Amino acid sequence: MKVLITGSSGLIGSMLVNALTDQFDIFGLDARESDNAPDVPTTIADGSDYEAMSKAFDGVDAVVHLAANAPVETPWPDVLKNNISATHNVYEAARQHRVKRVIFASSNHAVGNFEMDEPYSRIRVGDYEGLDPGGYAMVDHTAAIRPDSDYGVSKAFGEATGRYYHEHFGLEVACLRIGTVNAQNSPKGSVRTLATWLSHRDLAQLVTQCLTQPLGFEIFYGVSDNTWRFWDTDHAKNTIGYAPQDNGEDYRE
Amino acid sequence: MKVLITGSSGLIGSMLVNALTDQFDIFGLDARESDNAPDVPTTIADGSDYEAMSKAFDGVDAVVHLAANAPVETPWPDVLKNNISATHNVYEAARQHRVKRVIFASSNHAVGNFEMDEPYSRIRVGDYEGLDPGGYAMVDHTAAIRPDSDYGVSKAFGEATGRYYHEHFGLEVACLRIGTVNAQNSPKGSVRTLATWLSHRDLAQLVTQCLTQPLGFEIFYGVSDNTWRFWDTDHAKNTIGYAPQDNGEDYRE
Repeated sequence: MKVLITGSSGLIGSMLVNALTDQFDIFGLDARESDNAPDVPTTIADGSDYEAMSKAFDGVDAVVHLAANAPVETPWPDVLKNNISATHNVYEAARQHRVKRVIFASSNHAVGNFEMDEPYSRIRVGDYEGLDPGGYAMVDHTAAIRPDSDYGVSKAFGEATGRYYHEHFGLEVACLRIGTVNAQNSPKGSVRTLATWLSHRDLAQLVTQCLTQPLGFEIFYGVSDNTWRFWDTDHAKNTIGYAPQDNGEDYRE
Repeated sequence: MKVLITGSSGLIGSMLVNALTDQFDIFGLDARESDNAPDVPTTIADGSDYEAMSKAFDGVDAVVHLAANAPVETPWPDVLKNNISATHNVYEAARQHRVKRVIFASSNHAVGNFEMDEPYSRIRVGDYEGLDPGGYAMVDHTAAIRPDSDYGVSKAFGEATGRYYHEHFGLEVACLRIGTVNAQNSPKGSVRTLATWLSHRDLAQLVTQCLTQPLGFEIFYGVSDNTWRFWDTDHAKNTIGYAPQDNGEDYRE
């Protein structure tokens, strides 16, 4: 199974290449050469340049689309070019090259404004008084779109495009609303991170399930089995057998 | 109350200028000069050119944002420039110029794929057997985003951006998922149109209510009181007093 990973030299990209290379035939697509690029055949092309980037899709079975400007504060011109235009191009190149499946790295920021509401607004700052872990409604795949940034809007755009390409062209699509992934693979950055952490191995297992299990169009949250998480994981567990092993709470100091 | 209408020389734009000019101080914004342009002060600027278009927002109380490539088949490069980039610019210019309210012309195509499902798939072709008018669930403002085109994706983008600007910057936003509006102001184009028609006077009344009633962030369907409609109007009736007077069924031949 030939899998193309866009943004393959990025934080998540390089981690996933290493985690998936035993099981899949991995190729990379990246905007520029990098000293951090993992040792897989990699096409260098800007995602917003359809002619250049679409060459990487030839013969590919599935795409894991990670390439984007990741900071939530990314200014609009970069969001437009690197997140919106490039994401459209990924879906379109997948369709043109008869790729079966796209795993789209969406983000919790597509629905980030739920964190303005209780109890999420309290959990994110560690005010747990009167709350039981998990004893509140989880934000799930049916939640309204509530972006907290232009970046979040671009992720909602990628989800909407994915559903369109699924329903009209039969592309299989999973959108992963990824929580907090960091280089140190640790939830200790803040009290919020204890709730929102996604460990590297849980992410790798989630993506593996997305690549190997039956799939139509789905939205899944990418979050570890954290005691104080407020994003649903049942849908991913029930649909594709997501089996998170880590819990941010184990790292509370 | 100073109201800026973008796309003021278009089909809906010129109709709304005429309908609203007695009640509001109307200004236009359009990409180019037109013989059809209504006789109101109009800024000529491309919506994707922020510096040029944003000048029209000075001193404005509310914006009715209609400017877009309207055909559902609009190719992606035009959607990106004229629907996505220009719509972002409208929200951002509204924020920068302290405009209070934006009425965004969204579209039924943001959720158009519900028409692939029964009973909507049958109603749209006139197969009413066993159905009672209105005796089925309406597609409403809580429905999942299911665009039927890049155009539909761009309208979902505009709604997501509107919610972000409302929740973060306090902008008041109504997104109107407009049905079928045509120059002849008639529902007789097809059997689907009998269900999806929005008459000119119902649209003008809906926009007037959006401009004058209390508003946070809302999604409303723009459809007349058609016997076989499948889009909810209760939310607009209950929230802002939308009072449609027309019914496509009265024109069935």
